[in-house]
This record gives sequence, structure tokens and C-alpha cells, in this order.
Amino acid sequence: MTELSSILAKVAAGELSPAAAEPLLQPAVRDLGFATLDLDRERRCGHAEVIYCPGKTPAQVLALMQALAAAGQSAMASRASPDVAAVVRAALPEAVYHETARMLTYDSQPLPTPAGRVAVVAAGTSDLPVAEEAALVAERLGAVVDRVFDVGVAGLHRLGRQLDRLREANVLIVVAGMEGALPSVVGGLIAKPIIAVPTSVGYGTGQGGLAALLSMLNSCVAGITVVNIDNGFGAGVAAALINRLATRA
Amino acid sequence: MTELSSILAKVAAGELSPAAAEPLLQPAVRDLGFATLDLDRERRCGHAEVIYCPGKTPAQVLALMQALAAAGQSAMASRASPDVAAVVRAALPEAVYHETARMLTYDSQPLPTPAGRVAVVAAGTSDLPVAEEAALVAERLGAVVDRVFDVGVAGLHRLGRQLDRLREANVLIVVAGMEGALPSVVGGLIAKPIIAVPTSVGYGTGQGGLAALLSMLNSCVAGITVVNIDNGFGAGVAAALINRLATRA
Amino acid sequence: MTELSSILAKVAAGELSPAAAEPLLQPAVRDLGFATLDLDRERRCGHAEVIYCPGKTPAQVLALMQALAAAGQSAMASRASPDVAAVVRAALPEAVYHETARMLTYDSQPLPTPAGRVAVVAAGTSDLPVAEEAALVAERLGAVVDRVFDVGVAGLHRLGRQLDRLREANVLIVVAGMEGALPSVVGGLIAKPIIAVPTSVGYGTGQGGLAALLSMLNSCVAGITVVNIDNGFGAGVAAALINRLATRA
Amino acid sequence: MTELSSILAKVAAGELSPAAAEPLLQPAVRDLGFATLDLDRERRCGHAEVIYCPGKTPAQVLALMQALAAAGQSAMASRASPDVAAVVRAALPEAVYHETARMLTYDSQPLPTPAGRVAVVAAGTSDLPVAEEAALVAERLGAVVDRVFDVGVAGLHRLGRQLDRLREANVLIVVAGMEGALPSVVGGLIAKPIIAVPTSVGYGTGQGGLAALLSMLNSCVAGITVVNIDNGFGAGVAAALINRLATRA
Amino acid sequence: MTELSSILAKVAAGELSPAAAEPLLQPAVRDLGFATLDLDRERRCGHAEVIYCPGKTPAQVLALMQALAAAGQSAMASRASPDVAAVVRAALPEAVYHETARMLTYDSQPLPTPAGRVAVVAAGTSDLPVAEEAALVAERLGAVVDRVFDVGVAGLHRLGRQLDRLREANVLIVVAGMEGALPSVVGGLIAKPIIAVPTSVGYGTGQGGLAALLSMLNSCVAGITVVNIDNGFGAGVAAALINRLATRA
Amino acid sequence: MTELSSILAKVAAGELSPAAAEPLLQPAVRDLGFATLDLDRERRCGHAEVIYCPGKTPAQVLALMQALAAAGQSAMASRASPDVAAVVRAALPEAVYHETARMLTYDSQPLPTPAGRVAVVAAGTSDLPVAEEAALVAERLGAVVDRVFDVGVAGLHRLGRQLDRLREANVLIVVAGMEGALPSVVGGLIAKPIIAVPTSVGYGTGQGGLAALLSMLNSCVAGITVVNIDNGFGAGVAAALINRLATRA
Amino acid sequence: MTELSSILAKVAAGELSPAAAEPLLQPAVRDLGFATLDLDRERRCGHAEVIYCPGKTPAQVLALMQALAAAGQSAMASRASPDVAAVVRAALPEAVYHETARMLTYDSQPLPTPAGRVAVVAAGTSDLPVAEEAALVAERLGAVVDRVFDVGVAGLHRLGRQLDRLREANVLIVVAGMEGALPSVVGGLIAKPIIAVPTSVGYGTGQGGLAALLSMLNSCVAGITVVNIDNGFGAGVAAALINRLATRA
Amino acid sequence: MTELSSILAKVAAGELSPAAAEPLLQPAVRDLGFATLDLDRERRCGHAEVIYCPGKTPAQVLALMQALAAAGQSAMASRASPDVAAVVRAALPEAVYHETARMLTYDSQPLPTPAGRVAVVAAGTSDLPVAEEAALVAERLGAVVDRVFDVGVAGLHRLGRQLDRLREANVLIVVAGMEGALPSVVGGLIAKPIIAVPTSVGYGTGQGGLAALLSMLNSCVAGITVVNIDNGFGAGVAAALINRLATRA
Repeated sequence: MTELSSILAKVAAGELSPAAAEPLLQPAVRDLGFATLDLDRERRCGHAEVIYCPGKTPAQVLALMQALAAAGQSAMASRASPDVAAVVRAALPEAVYHETARMLTYDSQPLPTPAGRVAVVAAGTSDLPVAEEAALVAERLGAVVDRVFDVGVAGLHRLGRQLDRLREANVLIVVAGMEGALPSVVGGLIAKPIIAVPTSVGYGTGQGGLAALLSMLNSCVAGITVVNIDNGFGAGVAAALINRLATRA
Repeated sequence: MTELSSILAKVAAGELSPAAAEPLLQPAVRDLGFATLDLDRERRCGHAEVIYCPGKTPAQVLALMQALAAAGQSAMASRASPDVAAVVRAALPEAVYHETARMLTYDSQPLPTPAGRVAVVAAGTSDLPVAEEAALVAERLGAVVDRVFDVGVAGLHRLGRQLDRLREANVLIVVAGMEGALPSVVGGLIAKPIIAVPTSVGYGTGQGGLAALLSMLNSCVAGITVVNIDNGFGAGVAAALINRLATRA
Repeated sequence: MTELSSILAKVAAGELSPAAAEPLLQPAVRDLGFATLDLDRERRCGHAEVIYCPGKTPAQVLALMQALAAAGQSAMASRASPDVAAVVRAALPEAVYHETARMLTYDSQPLPTPAGRVAVVAAGTSDLPVAEEAALVAERLGAVVDRVFDVGVAGLHRLGRQLDRLREANVLIVVAGMEGALPSVVGGLIAKPIIAVPTSVGYGTGQGGLAALLSMLNSCVAGITVVNIDNGFGAGVAAALINRLATRA
Repeated sequence: MTELSSILAKVAAGELSPAAAEPLLQPAVRDLGFATLDLDRERRCGHAEVIYCPGKTPAQVLALMQALAAAGQSAMASRASPDVAAVVRAALPEAVYHETARMLTYDSQPLPTPAGRVAVVAAGTSDLPVAEEAALVAERLGAVVDRVFDVGVAGLHRLGRQLDRLREANVLIVVAGMEGALPSVVGGLIAKPIIAVPTSVGYGTGQGGLAALLSMLNSCVAGITVVNIDNGFGAGVAAALINRLATRA
Repeated sequence: MTELSSILAKVAAGELSPAAAEPLLQPAVRDLGFATLDLDRERRCGHAEVIYCPGKTPAQVLALMQALAAAGQSAMASRASPDVAAVVRAALPEAVYHETARMLTYDSQPLPTPAGRVAVVAAGTSDLPVAEEAALVAERLGAVVDRVFDVGVAGLHRLGRQLDRLREANVLIVVAGMEGALPSVVGGLIAKPIIAVPTSVGYGTGQGGLAALLSMLNSCVAGITVVNIDNGFGAGVAAALINRLATRA
Repeated sequence: MTELSSILAKVAAGELSPAAAEPLLQPAVRDLGFATLDLDRERRCGHAEVIYCPGKTPAQVLALMQALAAAGQSAMASRASPDVAAVVRAALPEAVYHETARMLTYDSQPLPTPAGRVAVVAAGTSDLPVAEEAALVAERLGAVVDRVFDVGVAGLHRLGRQLDRLREANVLIVVAGMEGALPSVVGGLIAKPIIAVPTSVGYGTGQGGLAALLSMLNSCVAGITVVNIDNGFGAGVAAALINRLATRA
Repeated sequence: MTELSSILAKVAAGELSPAAAEPLLQPAVRDLGFATLDLDRERRCGHAEVIYCPGKTPAQVLALMQALAAAGQSAMASRASPDVAAVVRAALPEAVYHETARMLTYDSQPLPTPAGRVAVVAAGTSDLPVAEEAALVAERLGAVVDRVFDVGVAGLHRLGRQLDRLREANVLIVVAGMEGALPSVVGGLIAKPIIAVPTSVGYGTGQGGLAALLSMLNSCVAGITVVNIDNGFGAGVAAALINRLATRA
Repeated sequence: MTELSSILAKVAAGELSPAAAEPLLQPAVRDLGFATLDLDRERRCGHAEVIYCPGKTPAQVLALMQALAAAGQSAMASRASPDVAAVVRAALPEAVYHETARMLTYDSQPLPTPAGRVAVVAAGTSDLPVAEEAALVAERLGAVVDRVFDVGVAGLHRLGRQLDRLREANVLIVVAGMEGALPSVVGGLIAKPIIAVPTSVGYGTGQGGLAALLSMLNSCVAGITVVNIDNGFGAGVAAALINRLATRA
């Protein structure tokens, strides 16, 4: 019997009032006028609604974080500039600004005890902001994160000496700009899910990250999946979802 | 102590001969002249080397399948045309041709008992070849596959009635062409890893699959990962790797 | 009171059985295995589900048309090749093949009496297949269609002599390839909704229709809306929806 | 008899002097040296010539607004920066600056009483400037505008609870950045004309709005029409033209 | 006094009947149903309407050529395949098919005596079809054409020995594929108008002619103008218009 | 006898010394270390070498202008910022800065008496910088320039009333951004050479001028030639070269 | 004293007749009407003019090969289809057709004794046609070629076992499609010039070779140079020129 | 016997301790936390690891230079802004900042005596920063560099007078923006390896360097190799590697 059938049967049987049934079929929101906050996101997707800062005023970011806090949910605001962070932290001092990852976070309750390992591998030092964003998100969603930075293909032995360590992870996030070859090399050596993150590090035909993105999408190694250019956030969420499968199984 | 240190120590101690140590540090290949078959792939990556047919002559595909068979490994040849299949099956009658998935397979040993569920969701009927390729690969790599086809966003209730079923999967492969919106909608409803596969179904600005690819890479739902256009094979491998985490944990 | 509240109240009051309530909340489909036909589309969107032929086998197109027919709905299959048409018409002789428009249609009931005028304007003779597709769809969805062909900007007086006629339409579909300038010129002369359809007629940098598409999206005339390249079908649907507003008001 | 024939007949009959006939065949302009203001636009297109500010000096924008005002026409200047607004309002204090919509307006006469409803639906808070531009233009051209903001596909129930309200509109403007999936979802649920507006909200492959634009052009829902990226203005004009059909019919 | 004023004055004075005035203000067309032939093109633009064959049926091409012939005008049909040519010449045996240039022509009256020189310069042998199309059109529109073929930049001395000859032309058409450098080199040596024609000769990143087109648009030599890829026709028309200035002056 | 043969014959005959022959075969340059100024350009191409300012330091621009002045040649420096202009004019006060056209000029001798008319037509006010650059260059190279601004296709009657005037020009430069339709419309009405200049005026898909460029390259009117986006300079040179043919013939 | 000065001095001194001097300043060509064969190419560039077959008729290819043969030069015709080969070899039986490399060759004299080693490394079997073209050209231009095929990054140990062999080459040509990572990996291990050749092997976003090209251009390893997609010919020429430096030094 | 076999044999024979063998199989790195410095690069690739500055903080650049210095290696930091240079030179005064080339260098030991000539040819003055970067790198890696600047194809005689000089180089780096034709012209005249460097000098369709890149990749002259846009660094390394072949042979 489907969820819908079951709810309707209970309503017909008087076990559930229409008022109690309605939110089950139509989850909660909070209407802020300029925004319709999705308070059910955490239940459905495993993490509260995320605030993407570009294009929003600092006041809007603050209002959204406060509304999540008021609903007892934790908050993450990505791509927050120092200026936005200053406005938010003035009004919500418990919020924390992670400068390299460019993220604002607020915890309504203690984070879960981390379990299961996610490796975040970066090809070069210029890729750190994206790699840190991925690492921070995976940590906040419950993973133990192992950072392995600056092991690009120009000096493969740097990666070689970390293979044993990398094999201990349930899932690997591999971050690279320029030619984006690192995920292919890692994928040829390790039989774990690999999430490739192209970065916009580069110049000329590589500027913007297109070369790295295409390189990752066209890898001769089967099984690599890819997120948008510079999308450390998404990679962190995906890795955490996979890591939970391994730790909860 | 790293793997390398440990091997060298054993060699120094006379516990391992140089001849026995060498393949540990340099895995096996088979040189076919026109190809260097990687016989160690299965050990490293969890599946034997895959034969990508386009650009190869039927004789080359056959030789590669025979070499894998001779090495006691199972074989998969992707994007095989009926003509290639005919040549291969004439010489290797145990090979099977999967027409919709455009794949040739050969089993050196019985497939493992499937465990753990992978859902393959397709937006439309025209997406079936790619969806079937993904499903077939995931099955061969050990998953139970649940096919849910033709549930695109133009009629959302078709998806709605399958949600309970989809939530039973460890990981979802979501295949869509045209505007590629289906993975975003699924991702907003289910907290499991989602692998989005854009297809080249469409015309005008969508022909080739660019619209679907960009739509998936830019999803407002965090945590969706993406493979190349029409890359059902890669999606199947990635899903199987994730599914193994859940079933082996 | 919303629709959902009202249904639940009736279930609680015993006025509606759960079995009767369920389809109201979850509309009807027909599962064909390879497809999930949306039988509710006509009610929701004003036209039955459309069959896009490329990527489908002739047998699949036929099965979908038969399923729509069995459900008492009319059917339209777009981009049907003569081969597909032959297969379908052999089994479903009442189906009609419109060669220039490349469409197969089947009428479960007589078409509505047309009301309200839609003008279909084409820049050149090579644009006719797309223009005819648009015209046929608009006609089937209830509009009187006025065809004005080959009035491109190279000879503006050809358009000039049709202005009085064009002003009688509620909405205009303007089809053009190459530089795609015709919608801008029409839009500067007539205060009616204009739907621009770029075609892939052209060569060199114009091949594929990009030049016409960009020209239409960047028109210096405000208020022109655009559909995908060669998307006569979509333009016909959009025009019919607009025309209905005018005729039903 | 065509308009041209009729005018010539009257001239021949002496009912119309050549001087009186000439403007009927060649509408009025005002030559400002750097610009040729089209004073006949309102009669032909239903709204006076619009001033697109980028690339014009503040003095040019002011001169154009003053010339429209002098001709007794209302004026709209789009994409006006605060600096341009300050220059214009210093000289023309009756002009109003709409900051979110980045528009300057001047009313030569009271706006018409609004009639007929246009819904402006936005996927996210970052899309507000474009959505507000569309809403303001539709209002000024006679529509009642209903704003429904931040109901993107990541939390579909936010849209679900607004469906009854959206169905009351004659036409819907749906604004979205990133993957641009919202118009397809709305279009699958509501049988009204839908104008999709892609925005440049996003990053990586989505920056600039290409992903959203392609997603909208390739929607699997027939009948959606699209305007240029960030073109709230055009969407507002198109919606108003359609809305007039419904209210005047 | 403008043309319009003058015509109206004559109508008012009875010197011109409305029926006689109307065609002066609205030039002649011939309506073929599927086409609206612009019979005034020759007067306005210096050459009769041109028939672009792709996308037209052979019957349509024939009907258009016959209509031009019936109106006493000469006809040119570009990009005509041998199949189209066969259909046309069967019914209109006076038509001539120029195979390399892929053009069908029909002369209603003898061509004018050629005057003034146009040089058509081609970089390589593979560029001949485009170069011949340009040459043929320029000849038919009155120019003496000098063909200088296969003088690309890989062997500059081939060009060097033709400079004196090239300087005798009023205007030069320079045709090149691949890197498209030839127009820049010619333009640095000769002070005459140069029309550059990129061709689709090439492969890899050059296939389709983009490299040649961009090279020509970005020439470091000022004063080169460019036409669409493979547009020999347009180059021939442009050269003829320029050549007429020199010969008529 | 070719130029080369003739020079060699004179050298052999002693009529020309090797030292005198050498510059005839190898024209003069001036080596500035960072630059190799082409002092022969005026003789070969009809105008002295032009200084393109971006990427050059103000000191380099000044040195180049001074070197041209020292050689008795006139100088034009394009895309000069006000800062560059200030540096140059401080050291070379006879240089003139044309602000709208962003050009620095220096006259070593009086300009020639202008002869022959070039029309510069611009679609909108935002296109003025490019149009002015074209006009200024054409004037300096000997043409009488007629400026016709802001006559875009949104209000075609603005163009219509200028047709008689435009027909007096030997050649027309037509400048347009956004959809770039104006050259096609002008080309359909006037049988003179037309040089189309796309501008980067626009936004969304039009930003950068691609839409206008493609529109012009794909015009359904044969004979329009095109220059690079925003290349008013090149259009001015090309128009002047054509105009000279008409005036010198 | 420059070459030009020296020749002129000899002419003046009567040591060289003008007729003898002219070809020194203007090298030899052979005019075939449709082509201007550069007979001086071998002297200047180290190899005779190459015939690029696409876009040429078989008769034209034959005539060019015969003309080179008549001039005592060797000939290479690239991208020759079997049909072209058949026509040529029927008339010129000494010509050899290399099927995998798609090349026709004709030797006027014995090839030079090979000296110096060029390694041609290919990532996969599908890359063989391009790799063979490169190898064949390098061999014909004097190099000893070592072929190392199917050693892509998915199984790095295949490359690892060939490193000693690869280090013996003077220059390496590395051919790869799909993600094109192999040149970066090779470049990080070997200090020799590396010429990377992207191939069009792949599908989806990789089809056409763009991903491989961008990957190679953006390599994090400095010093890799790149040729056009599928340009085995150019890579072979470049490698031969470099190899000559090493062997002649 | 391969290197691996030989090392293992020595370990087994007790001639090499495991501790001494390990670094031979796994080269040295220095772990800086945010970076994994490859101290073996110089041995493998012929130059120490290069620091690409964009995306790194000044402190990171400094730390990397100091670590290279501490390891007794020379350091090059490319694309260093004056701000980064100031931070580095404050702490490491022996570092030198090359302003035009935008490079920071530090020498741990005297540079080698230069041998063998590399020519760096630039088309225009705006290309100097890229050309200087190439020249500086080639010099530091042991070449004698000959700079030939501003000899673009608009005035070919400027190049012509330098041919004798250019032929003395072992390898040529040819730098050009805009249409990028210079390498093709040089390649048609000189039989030496040519490395083409496209620059981002230009505007409109050329901005970013795409036109120059495509022009170079599609050159009709075989044997030209290309690096990324503005990649003077890579060109310098490649030229130095080639030059070493000539000087060491």
C-alpha cells in the first residue's frame, strides 16, 4: 500500500484528522515574502536548505539564516563574501565564517559524530578554496574528511605515496583545474566512487574550467561522476550521501 | 608501513624473489600489438577492461574479447553495432548481444548473486538505449536493478506514484534528454545518491545533449553528480561502486 | 480552502472513499512497460500527450497511438518519417500522415469548430516544413490559421501588403531561418503577441539555426517570445493557448 | 480595399491633402541629432519607445525621457543605474526610480486601471531583479500582477500549494536561473501561456544563463516560449499583450 | 521634396491615378502560393531574386525559375544539386547548370558587356567550388573576372608573382579555408577593396570554416570585409556592386 | 614584364645601383626596438600604419606617433583611452583626441579635400562610439560622410524617410547591435555596397555582439559584407577604399 | 650582407644574369590551371608540397602527384579515401596506398637512411589511424619510429613498463582521444619534446576531439605542444624537423 | 633489464638497502601542508617545479619559493603580479622580478652558459608580455635568445629582411594575436621547428585569443605546433627542450 493510500485510509477511518493529514501530503514552508523557505528539506534530502549568496543582499542572507535558526535547523550559506559574513555575524554572532571555503555556518544543535571516511584530493594549491568547501560540507554532513592536496599529474609519485591512505576512504572527491587529468589517474588505481570537481583555475582556453570539465566528463576510466565547475558544495553533499550508505549499512 | 616498503623489505629478507616482486609493483598486461590489454583492471577497479567499439575494426574487438576470455576474465564491449556483434558471435558464440543496450558481453564465470538495489529512471521512451546500457552494466556488476521508465516532468504524477519504490534503492541513475530536468526533481524528493545521465535526445539547440548536460550540472539541488552525454556505461559502473559500499558495509 | 483540504475533508466526512480520492490527488497513467502514458495530460494542459518520434521504434510509436486511441484521446506524433507513418497507418488506417509537416494524427472525436485567428508567417519557401507543423497544430487545437509565406526582409513590400491581414490575427507565429530578422520587423509594426520560430535553414555560421535563434532572442523589439529551433510544434501549441484566451474571454 | 488604396483614393478625391496623407504613410519621429525618437511606437506597438540605458550617457537618457514627456507620452528607461537615475531625477523630478527592477519611469498621464491577471513566478531569491522588472512592466501596461517568489524545483511542494492561485492568471511569467527547470514543471501543470525567462544566476557552466536558456528552449512540455537571458522587460511586454487579448475579448 | 511627397502631389493633382500610384509605393510581387516572388528586386538591388535551393523541392525551384522567366527576368539558383538541375533543365532546357559552382542560370536577355576587373583569388584547390560560385556571379553581374587559384601562404612566392596582375583589379575576392591567412597577406600588399570568403575546407577545429572566418574577421590589416562561410554567391554580388562604382563613375 | 624583371634588368644595365634597387624590393621600416614601424604602409595600402592602443603602454603609443610624425606621415591611434590621450597630447600637442570615437590623430599635412559620399547608418544611440569611429576614419581617408543615426528596425519609418538621402552615397556603413537586422533591411532597399558592423551592444545571449555578427553574416540579402564586432575602424577603411574607386574612376 | 644585397651585387657585377637572378628571388612553381604547385617547397621546408585530398577530385589528386613525380619530387597525399587511391594507382602504379594511415605516397628516389628515434605513443586502439599517419610521415622524413600503442591512463602500469624505451627517443608524439590525459602523464616523466595529438575518438561532449584538445593545451606540465585534432600528419612533420636537429647536430 | 628489475635485484643481493631503494622508486617531495612540492621535477623534466601564481596567496608563493631555495633548486613563479612580487622580494631579496614577463625568479646557482639559438618572433607590440615570458624562460633553460618583434603580416617585408637571421635559430617561437597568421607565413619559409603562441590581443570575436589559436591549429603549413593562449612559459620550455637536442647532439 502506498503512502498516499495509507494516509487516506487513516483519514477515512478517523485515525487522522484532515488538518493532521494535510502537512503529510504538503510539507512545511516559511513565507518570508522575498523567499519561501523550505523547512522540510532536511527531512527529505538529509540537509537543510542551503543559502546561495550571490545575487542576494546581505539582509536577505541574514533573514534566511535567522529563519532557519528559528526553525531549529542548521544553516549553511555558500559563496559568502567577507562583507556578507560581517553583516550576518553582527546580528547572529554564533554564525561562523570559514574564509577559505567562503562559507557561513550556523549550528542549531551539535554536529553528528563523524563516521566513515571521505578523501578530498586536490591537484594544486590554487584549487584549495573549492576543495575546502567540499571538505567542510562533507564534515558537517557527518563524514571524517582526509585532505590530500597538491598531488597533480605533473609529479605522479606525489599521488603514488598516498594510495594506501586513499584506499581507506569510502568515496573520493578529486578536485582539479587546468587539464583536469587527476580524477582519471586516481580512478584507474582505486575501486571506489570518485566525484570529480573541475575548477576554474587556468587561463587561455582553460579559463572558466571548461577544459577540466570536459576532461573529467570524457575520462577513459568508467565510473567517474562530475559536478559543475567550482562546485565544491555539491561534491561535498554527494560524497556525504554516499558515505552514509557505507556507514549505515 | 607502506605497500612499497613492505615489498622491498621482503625482497631484502629473501622472502620474496625479485621476479615475484616485480609484478606486484608492475601489474600484468597482454600485448596484442595493436593493443596492450590491462589484465589487472579487474583487481584494481572492480571490473575487467571494457572494450569501446567505435574506431575499432570488428577483428580488433573480437581479438580483445578473446584475449579477456583466455585470461579467464569477463568481457563487456560497449557501443557495438549489429555488424560487430555478428563478427564476434560467429567466432565466440558464447558472447551475448544486448540489442537495445548496444552491448556485447561474455561471461568467463557465473555473475555474482545480485545484492542491493539500483533504480534506473528514464524521462522518456527515446532515452531507453542509454538507460538499458546503464541497467545492464549495474546488473553485471552485482546490483539488483529496478527500471522506472517514461516519468518525465511533463507529467509529474507519473513520478509521484513511484516515490516509495524509488526510496528503496541505494542509488538512483536518472536518464533524461531534452531539458534534462528530471534529476533535479528526483533529487529534491529523495535523499540518496543520484547519478544524472544526459542523453542526446532532442533537436535544435538541444541536439547532442548539451541542454540536458548543462541542466544537470547546474541543478539547484545539491548533490547530483553527472556523467558524459549518453554515457549509460559510466553511470552503471558508478552506481555499482556505490551500491557495493551499501551492501558490503 | 485549497483543493487538497477540500478532498481530505470529504474523505473524513465519508463523502468520498479513499479509492475515489486517490486518483484526484494522483492522476491517471497507462503503463506500457517501455512507456508511462500520461492520460491526464489533456485535462491539465489542454492537449493529449504528444509522441516525439525520433529515437522511438515504429512499433513504439504505433503502440503509443493505439493506447491514446483506446483511451478515447486524440493523438499527434511529431517528426514522423514516411517509414514510421507507413507502419502506423498499416495498423491504424484512420491515422493521417501530413507529409510537409511530418506529423501523424489520429482523431478520436471530431475536432472543435475553429475560432479565433492565428497567422503563420514564413520568411522563405525553405521554412515551409516548420511553418506547416505550427499551422497544423494550431488548427488542431482550435484556431483558424492564416498562412502568409515567403515575405522575408529582402523584399519588405511583400510583408507591407499583408499588414492589414496580419492585424486581424490574435497572435502571430513568425518563422525564419538565415538571419532571422522577420519577427523583429513584424513586431515593430503590429501590437499582437508574436512567437518567433528560428529554423535551421542556412549554411556556414547559420547552419543549425543559431543565427536566427540569437537574432530573435536579441530583438530590439520588446515582447517577442521564442521557441527552440525548428520547433513548429511548440509554437503551434503556444499560439493556440493564447488564441483560446481571446476567444473564450 | 487596403489602407494604402483607401488613402490614395481620398487624396485623389481631394478628401485628404497630400500634407495630411503623408504622416499616415510615414509616421512621426523626433530628431534629436544623436537619436531619432519614434513617436508613433505607442500607436503601433501598444507602448511608447523604451530607453535601454547601457551605452548611453546620462545626458542622452535624460534628453530622451524629456522628449517623450514633451510629446505627452509615458517613458520607461530600463537597466538604469543609480547614477543615471540621479541625473535624470535631478532634472525631471516626476520620474520614479524602481531600484530592484533598475527602471526609471515617467508618467505623462495616469496609468490605465489594471485588468486581467499576470502571475510572475520566480525560482529563487537571486532572480528577483529580473522578476521585478517583468512585474513592473506588466503592471504599467495594464495587468494585475501576482508575485509568487522562491518556489524552485528543489522543494516542489512550495509550488504545489500555489497552483490554485496560479491557475487564475491569464498568462504566467516564470523566471529561473541555474538549471531553469521551473517553467517545465509549471507548464506540465497549468494550461495557460507560459513565458520563460532565464536569468544569469549561477556559476561555472551556468554563469551567464546559458544552462537555463537551453533548458527552457528544450522543455519536454510543448507551448513554453522564451525570451533572452535576464530579459524581464520583454517578458513583461509579451505578457501584457497576451493579457490584453483576454481582457478585451 | 521626397519621393513620397511627389507621388502624393501628383495624385492630388490628378496627374497620377491611385491605381498607378499604388505600385510605385508598393512594388510588384508574384504570388505562387508557396512563395511570394519579389519581381521588383532587380530594380532595387541590381539583380533579380536569387533562388537558394536547399530545403526546396525540385518542383519549387523549377516553378520559381519559370516565374522569373515569365516576368522577363534572368534567374540564378544557387547550391543546386545535379538532381535539381536535371529536373529544371528537363522542363526549361535553356537553363544552364554550372557544375563546379553548383549553380543553375537562365538568361531572359543577353548578359551585359563586361566592364571592370574583379580578381578571384583562392588559397587552395579544395576551395574551387566556392571560388567558382563567386566568379560566376560576378561575371553575370557585369564584371571581367580574373581567376588566380592555389596561391596560399604556405608558398608565398606563388602570390608574389601575381601581384602586378592583382593590382589591376578594382576589387579582389580572396577565398581560403583552413587558417584563412591569405586575405591578410593580400590586404597588406594591395590598396583595393578586399572581400574575404572563408571556406569549410579543413578538419578538426577548422571543420566548418570557423577558423578561417575568425582569422579573416580579426585580420591585423584594416579594411578587409568578410562574408559567411562558403558564401561565394554573396562575395560575387558585393564585388559586382563595388566594380560598378568604378566602371560607372 | 614584371616589376621584378624590370628592376633586375635596370640593375644589370647599371641604370639602378644595388643600393637603390634594394628598397624597391624591400620597403622601408623604422626599428624602434619594441616595434618595427612599417613606413611603406601608406604607399602600399593607402593609409599609414595604424596604432592599436590596447596592450601598449602610453609611452609606446607616443613613441609610435612621434616616429610616424618624424617620417612625415599622418597618424591614427585607435581605442585610445583618455589616459593614453593625455600622455600623448602632453608631448605632442598637435595630436587631437576624438572622445566619442576613442581615437587620437595627428596630421603631418592637411587632409585631402573630401570627395564622394559615404553614409554611416546606426541602429541605436548606444552604437554611436563605433559609428563615430567609422565616420572619422572614412573622413580622414577622403570621403564626405553622412551620418544617419538611430533608425533601427523597431521603427522602420525612421529609415524609410532617409532612403533618398542614403541612395546618394557610394557605399553605406550600417552599424547595429542586439539582433543586427538593420543591414539586411537596408540591403533589400538600396543597390550599393553595404558594410555591416556588428556592435557589442546587448545583454544575455547578445552580449559581446555574437547575435548581431551572425545575423549580418547570414543575411538573406546577398552582397552585404561584414567586419569584426565593434570594428568601426576597419569599416571606415573599407568604405574609403570603395569610395575612392567611385571618385577616381 | 643579406641574401638580397648579395644577389643584387652579383647582377650589377654581371656575375649573375637577371634571368638567373629572378628565380632566386622568386622560387619555381608549376601552373596546372586549377592549382599552382610549389616546386620549391622541398628546398624551403624540408619536404615537398603535400596534397590534402578532401575537396579535390580524384583526377586533381592524380594530376598533382604526377606533376610532383615529373619534377622529380616525392609525393604524399593525405586523407586519401580508397576510391581516390584506386584512381591514382591505376594511372600511377608505383604509388603506394597506406590504408590505416589513409595516405598515398610516391617515391621519386629512395628514402633517406633513417636516423634518430621518434616514439609514437597512442592511448587506445581507436587512435591508431592518426598514430599511423604520424608514424608514416616521420619515417618518410628520415626518422626511426618506435610505436607504443594502447597505454592510456586507465592502466598506468602499461606506460610505466615502457619508460626506459620512451626515454631513448629524441621526441615523442603522444596521441589520445577522450579526455586526452596521456601527454600530461608522459610529460611529467620524460624530459624530451612532446607533441600531443588530440583525436576525435569519443562521444557526447568529447565527440570531435574538443575535450582532448583542451586537455592538452591546458596541461599542468609545461612544454607540451599541440597540433590540430586528428592531425597526425603535422605531428609527424614537426617530430621529423626536431629529430633532424638531434641527428644533424 | 629494466630499471625496476635492476633495483630489485640489487635489493635482493643486499647491494641496496630497502631504505635506499625506496626513493629510487618513489621520488622526493616536500610536504608544506597546503602543497606537496615535487623536488624531483628538475631531475625528471629538466627544470624545477614552476609556481603558477594566480589563485595562490602571496604567502603561499613565498613559501614555495623558499622551499625550492632551501632544497638548492632554482625557482620560477609565473604570472606574478607586482603585489606578489613585493611580498616575495621583501622576504627573499635575492629574487628578481621581471616586470614585462610578469615573472619572479630565484637562482640557487649560476645559470648554465647559454648555447644554441632560439628565436622569439612577435607579430605586434601588444604581444610583448607573452613574448618576453617565452624568451626569459628559454634563456633560463640554457638558450641564446634572439628577439625579433613587430613583424606581423600586414607588412611582410619587415619579416623578409630578418629571414637570414631567423634561419640561424634551432627553433622559433612565433607569438601573435588577432588573426594569428604569422606562424603560417614563417613556417612556409623556414625548415625549423616552429612553436606558435596565440595571444589574447584583439577584440570582438578575437578577444581571448580564440581566432589566433584556431588559425595556428589549422595552418596550411605542416609541422607547426601550438601552445595555449598566452602561454609564453610553455613555449619557452618546449623550445629549450628542442634546443638542447641540437646542442647536446
